[in-house]
Amino acid sequence: MVVELIAVGTELLLGNIVNTNAAYLSRQCAALGLSMYHQSVVGDNGERLAETLRMALDRSDVVILSGGLGPTQDDLTKETAAKVCGLPLVEDRHSRERIEEYFKNSQFRIITDNNWKQAMVPKGAIVVDNDNGTAPGLIIEKDGKSVILLPGPPNELIPMFEKDIYPYLHKLQPDTISSVMVKVCGLGESYVETQIRDLIDQQTNPTIATYAKTGEVHMRVTAKAADEKEAKKLIKPMVKELKKRFGNNVYTTDEKMTLEETVVNLLKEKGFTLTTAESCTGGLLGARLTNVPGVSEVYKQGFITYSNRAKRKLLDVKKNTLKMYGAVSDKTAKEMAKNGAFITGSDVCVSITGLAGPEGGTPDKPVGLVYIACCCHDRVLVNEFHFKGSRSKIREYAVVRALTLLREAILEEEPRQ
Amino acid sequence: MVVELIAVGTELLLGNIVNTNAAYLSRQCAALGLSMYHQSVVGDNGERLAETLRMALDRSDVVILSGGLGPTQDDLTKETAAKVCGLPLVEDRHSRERIEEYFKNSQFRIITDNNWKQAMVPKGAIVVDNDNGTAPGLIIEKDGKSVILLPGPPNELIPMFEKDIYPYLHKLQPDTISSVMVKVCGLGESYVETQIRDLIDQQTNPTIATYAKTGEVHMRVTAKAADEKEAKKLIKPMVKELKKRFGNNVYTTDEKMTLEETVVNLLKEKGFTLTTAESCTGGLLGARLTNVPGVSEVYKQGFITYSNRAKRKLLDVKKNTLKMYGAVSDKTAKEMAKNGAFITGSDVCVSITGLAGPEGGTPDKPVGLVYIACCCHDRVLVNEFHFKGSRSKIREYAVVRALTLLREAILEEEPRQ
Repeated sequence: MVVELIAVGTELLLGNIVNTNAAYLSRQCAALGLSMYHQSVVGDNGERLAETLRMALDRSDVVILSGGLGPTQDDLTKETAAKVCGLPLVEDRHSRERIEEYFKNSQFRIITDNNWKQAMVPKGAIVVDNDNGTAPGLIIEKDGKSVILLPGPPNELIPMFEKDIYPYLHKLQPDTISSVMVKVCGLGESYVETQIRDLIDQQTNPTIATYAKTGEVHMRVTAKAADEKEAKKLIKPMVKELKKRFGNNVYTTDEKMTLEETVVNLLKEKGFTLTTAESCTGGLLGARLTNVPGVSEVYKQGFITYSNRAKRKLLDVKKNTLKMYGAVSDKTAKEMAKNGAFITGSDVCVSITGLAGPEGGTPDKPVGLVYIACCCHDRVLVNEFHFKGSRSKIREYAVVRALTLLREAILEEEPRQ
Repeated sequence: MVVELIAVGTELLLGNIVNTNAAYLSRQCAALGLSMYHQSVVGDNGERLAETLRMALDRSDVVILSGGLGPTQDDLTKETAAKVCGLPLVEDRHSRERIEEYFKNSQFRIITDNNWKQAMVPKGAIVVDNDNGTAPGLIIEKDGKSVILLPGPPNELIPMFEKDIYPYLHKLQPDTISSVMVKVCGLGESYVETQIRDLIDQQTNPTIATYAKTGEVHMRVTAKAADEKEAKKLIKPMVKELKKRFGNNVYTTDEKMTLEETVVNLLKEKGFTLTTAESCTGGLLGARLTNVPGVSEVYKQGFITYSNRAKRKLLDVKKNTLKMYGAVSDKTAKEMAKNGAFITGSDVCVSITGLAGPEGGTPDKPVGLVYIACCCHDRVLVNEFHFKGSRSKIREYAVVRALTLLREAILEEEPRQ
């Protein structure tokens, strides 16, 4: 069963809005086990839309169109779909009543003529109620294929999809697709890819797809089966194999879990409190950690010590250390982490100091050089990195690597009693 | 001149990522005065991609492909484009050297075989350097048409488009489109729209388009003319009118200037130093400020005081203030700002304390309540906000409003002698 998306709207072609509907609908279709090979965007132009729809019906079983169902003249998705399917438009009594009802309760009391246009439906189409607007959705069934029309605004489209379209598609598609996301940190994409080349080459069911994120690689293992249980059974050995190959670098197999959440949970488990001491990232690590609701249980404070003076005053970094080794050095990173933990009485302190650029690099200390240290009780780990890319990329990498180092440092620690 | 977009990537068809590149490229092409009638998304499948590209070349003059230029086996955009254009792949010496260079400076030291694949280019293609990744961009010119290949990650695609593709397309398009971006902060989108409704209704050349950003509204004034000078002449009176209507809320008319940059420049002009004191934003304000290269001249340190204890220990907030008024109060915000400036000897300190949620709200102090204070020399300003939305949205709003308040506070100050 192959599904295809067509988004209709000149505002998409002008870049005035982002096509988030496509991502939403794709995710839903993938979860239903439907294959998708094409998505298109066309403007509010009858001829081009008709051509695109004809081609889509030629190669796919289900075509979902979004947008162009509004009351104005340039909205012509419904008219075009009816024409392509060879169906006349007839008034739908139920839709007419709903439009009357909607306007009775709305701040826009006057029903203009073009509003009644929205009560016209292709003959025989299934009408899908829209609880958040006046444009009903439609399902047209023709020659064993389905054309589904939904309004463009996500706050109308999403509830309609969930309530009526998802169950409709589920009936069409008996197979279940299930997937697990294996997320690794601290390894590069090409390295990860090389390590699983054999698995990818042999893949049939389940399949593996890799996704490179800044400082992370995610691998999606997907299986198709008669039911969820069977799909999960197919996935399990593959996930086990990936965990074996990447060991401690696998930080989660939970799709929704982020690296910072994993770290915060680990701190909670161990009963540890955390302090951050940041120079070149200027608060980005703190900001990332405080993305996580409930982080206040373990994260109490952070220092942004951008200047040398601040490193001395707030974190007691020795004047001599800064003079002898410089602010960007393993010695400074270590002192920041050690003193940050000591001053605040925290179990753990992670520090970052580096050159994010674009200016300020030297042959000895080029832009991208970053030292990250982590002090956990009596132990201090420090790592040297050479990141490549823009200022913001270097800072992002530094944050992900700090979270990775922090995770490593506390993973093997005994929990606080 | 008609341009068309093809995004390549199975992750788009699975809905794992949103196609923000399409919106970005569409906006840029619209600004260049190029017409766009079609956008497509296809997976990493050679056959379907070839078919889609052939069709695009049939109906458009320029086809921009994004994605599928990575080092892995399933990346085959380049191979497919070369085949469709009937060109062999040859090694590009310059690209090979850049890859070597990239890996020499990268944290991932091992160059795997598949990395060299990225140095192969269709014969005669123009190579576009990628400063943030290993995949070069390419421009293939064939029978008066252009096929442009760009990598998928926006942090690679956008700088490459700006540096090389925009000028390339500009040369192809004889009519000049020029635009100026008027950026306002501290006003809501519907308010801004109401204030310029009359201008939008009358618009012909120049046109005005509004873009809502978190806590900001941007207005693009665009004119079409025979040359740049003529276009600029058309734009000027409209920009003047917008400045008149929005006064001090207009923080820049420079497309590339961000709010944080404006604030940093203003601090530099005045000769002021800045400290941040953050609670619910957890470093996000510091991170935003330190996005700006050269910020170290004015920004020396920041405090992330997430717990009450940290507010007391690091910022000397009175125990009694926290007890009587709570951590989320105008009194606490004021003390944070005042003490932050005093402790560090800074000219200015801006503080944020609030409830980002999703938990922890009460009828008295609901989620979204945020106090922002700014102490500039002897003067302390404090504002109360009620933000709506998710945790991350509330935190983002708070940061933008803090920058806005900071700007207001220092705008009228006498510079330091």
